[in-house]
Amino acid sequence: MLNDDNRADITKRLNRIAGQVQGIQRMVDDDRYCVDILTQIAAARAALGKVSNQVLEAHLDTCVVTSFASGNENDREAKVRELLDVFGRYMSK
Amino acid sequence: MLNDDNRADITKRLNRIAGQVQGIQRMVDDDRYCVDILTQIAAARAALGKVSNQVLEAHLDTCVVTSFASGNENDREAKVRELLDVFGRYMSK
Amino acid sequence: MLNDDNRADITKRLNRIAGQVQGIQRMVDDDRYCVDILTQIAAARAALGKVSNQVLEAHLDTCVVTSFASGNENDREAKVRELLDVFGRYMSK
Amino acid sequence: MLNDDNRADITKRLNRIAGQVQGIQRMVDDDRYCVDILTQIAAARAALGKVSNQVLEAHLDTCVVTSFASGNENDREAKVRELLDVFGRYMSK
Repeated sequence: MLNDDNRADITKRLNRIAGQVQGIQRMVDDDRYCVDILTQIAAARAALGKVSNQVLEAHLDTCVVTSFASGNENDREAKVRELLDVFGRYMSK
Repeated sequence: MLNDDNRADITKRLNRIAGQVQGIQRMVDDDRYCVDILTQIAAARAALGKVSNQVLEAHLDTCVVTSFASGNENDREAKVRELLDVFGRYMSK
Repeated sequence: MLNDDNRADITKRLNRIAGQVQGIQRMVDDDRYCVDILTQIAAARAALGKVSNQVLEAHLDTCVVTSFASGNENDREAKVRELLDVFGRYMSK
Repeated sequence: MLNDDNRADITKRLNRIAGQVQGIQRMVDDDRYCVDILTQIAAARAALGKVSNQVLEAHLDTCVVTSFASGNENDREAKVRELLDVFGRYMSK
C-alpha cells in the first residue's frame, strides 16, 4: 500500500517520465543522433527503476510486514514468491 | 540514423510506452496492489529496452558502419567509446 | 540463514561457476572468438544471478520473516533497508 | 581478438573473480549473513561485467572494425547481429 506522500512523489516522477518519453519521441522525429537517443532511453529506464524502488519500499513496509507478522504461513509463502518474482523481473540476465 | 520504417515502428512503440506509463499512474491512483504495479513498471522498462535495441541496430547499421569503413581513426575511436558507454548504461551492475 | 539443502545446492552451483570462470580463462588463453567469450561471461553472470535468487529466498524465508514477525521496529526498518539495497545492487541502471 | 595487454589484464581480473567465487563459497560454509553473501555475489557479477566490457572493447577495435571496413555486407550483417545479441544478453529485462 502506498501512503499519500508516496503517491504524490511517484505521481511527480511518472509525470516526468511521461515527459521523457515524449522527449525521446521528439528526438526520433528530429532525427537526432542515435547515441543521444539511447542515452535518453537509458535515463527513462533508470527513472522507472527509481519508481519501482519506491513502490517496493512501500510494499515491504506495509503488505510484507503485515503478512510476515500475521503468522499465516500460506500468505507468507505467497509474499516471498512474489518478491522473488519481482527481483527476477528487474535483475539482468 | 533511423530510416522511415524504424521511425514509424519506434513511434508506435513509444506511444504504447506512454500508455503504459499512464496505466501505471492510474494503478497508483486506484491504490492497486504494489506487486502488480511493479510488474507493470518492469514491462514498461522492458518495452523501452526493445526500443533501445532497435535504435542500437540502426546505429550499428548506419553511423558505425560508415565510421568504421571510413578509415578515420579518431572517428572510429569515438564510435567505439560511445558504444561501450551505451553498453555500460544498460548493463546491470 | 541457509539450511543444509540450500547450502549443498549453492555449493554445487558455485563449483560449476568456478569451472565456468576457468573455462573463460582457457578461452582467453586459446584466443577464442570474443563473442563466444562474451556469451560465456554472460552465462557465468546468469549463474551467479541464480545463486543470488536462492540466497535471497532463504533470507526472506528465515531472517526477514523472523524480523518482521518480531515487532521490533528498528530491526524491521534495517531489514527493509537491506532488501532495497540488495535490489538496487542487482537492478540494471 | 585480444592483444597481449588485454589478455594479461583480463587474466588478472579472472583470477580475482575466481578468488571471489571461492570467498562466496567460504561465506556459505561459515554460515555468514545472507545479505553479506548477496553483496559479494553482486560484486563478482560486477567484476565479470567489467571483463565483458574489456572483451567487447577489444572486439569492436579489431574484428568489428575489420569487418565493417571490408565492405563484405554478409559479414557486416553477422557482426551487427552478434553485437545486438550480446547487448540483449547483458541488458536487464
